[in-house]
Amino acid sequence: MKFKLASLRLLALAGGVLLLAAASFQAADAGKPAVSPARFTADGELIRPRDYRTWVYVGAPLTPNDMNEGAAAFPEFHSVYIDRDSYEHYKRTGQWREGAVIVKELISVGSKQAASGQGYFMGDYLGVEAMVKSRERFPDEPGNWAFFSFTSLNREPPKKQTVRMPTAQCAQCHQASAKENLVFTQHYPVLRAAKGVGTENPENRW
Amino acid sequence: MKFKLASLRLLALAGGVLLLAAASFQAADAGKPAVSPARFTADGELIRPRDYRTWVYVGAPLTPNDMNEGAAAFPEFHSVYIDRDSYEHYKRTGQWREGAVIVKELISVGSKQAASGQGYFMGDYLGVEAMVKSRERFPDEPGNWAFFSFTSLNREPPKKQTVRMPTAQCAQCHQASAKENLVFTQHYPVLRAAKGVGTENPENRW
Repeated sequence: MKFKLASLRLLALAGGVLLLAAASFQAADAGKPAVSPARFTADGELIRPRDYRTWVYVGAPLTPNDMNEGAAAFPEFHSVYIDRDSYEHYKRTGQWREGAVIVKELISVGSKQAASGQGYFMGDYLGVEAMVKSRERFPDEPGNWAFFSFTSLNREPPKKQTVRMPTAQCAQCHQASAKENLVFTQHYPVLRAAKGVGTENPENRW
Repeated sequence: MKFKLASLRLLALAGGVLLLAAASFQAADAGKPAVSPARFTADGELIRPRDYRTWVYVGAPLTPNDMNEGAAAFPEFHSVYIDRDSYEHYKRTGQWREGAVIVKELISVGSKQAASGQGYFMGDYLGVEAMVKSRERFPDEPGNWAFFSFTSLNREPPKKQTVRMPTAQCAQCHQASAKENLVFTQHYPVLRAAKGVGTENPENRW
């Protein structure tokens, strides 16, 4: 009888531990702290983000050479991604969080003719660029965003790390023309649709 | 002394339970069975997928009206996504798994001029389409892919469920022109880059 009582106590304790463990693992999954995917070297160079092709894609602007007298400033397709935690944060709050990373992958115009008609179709990867928001690291940059280009010349693989671009080279135009805190949300339907989801009924949205 | 021994035993047991719980939660996360996101009604209509904007984006073909004498068959931007489990499966094996879902979201041409130059920029959502691969459900369809359109007329919100399209309307062209098992991988750099990652050193790839 005493043995049985001890066993019951053990069982109860084990059950409690199991529930606690389950709760803590769930919390670690659902409410995990949003960690920035931006990683820097000791010298402050940004290490090229990995796995961004599984982040949240927000849009694909295109300004091809043949629509810009053969000399487009950005003659490629741009595939633009935002890290998943920052997307969720933006959905909830409509704000860009500290540590947000937006990656722009550059892709050649591969062809202009397909079974579906005349148009523009993606070719090969040409480069990778990123912008990182950090009040801590970039207190004096507009909106605390810094810009980085990992793109190498002659279609070489992209650099593994790089220093930030001069403010005049990227931030100025983003500041002047981007709709929202240096982000071109006017071209990104995914972000426009996401904004405010937290305060509206998702069923009523597209 | 006896109490201390009992406490130690309890502690050891609790520790063991904790480890077991941790192991099972990890396994549930890492090795979870790949479940198809395709959901059907009892009548075999496909229920419109949710959350596909957080799936893996593979490319954005564009055949605008003004490049097709004002009458393009597909005058919108297409944002093409594949469900995450199928992407991982494709990376490992180079094959499309049973239950794979590819979603094509239709987006208007919003503008043709921006700070970055003349081009094509995404506007608003117009519709949603999907293709689902299932040998079980579509044994007689080419490649076992069936095609669905949730797009409503007059920019109404998309349908919540729909029957599959006639084979002649989608599958025939996909079969004739798509590079790989009815999927237009020739226009999807993300998929071309992913294929074979499992058998090569990812560091050597773009």
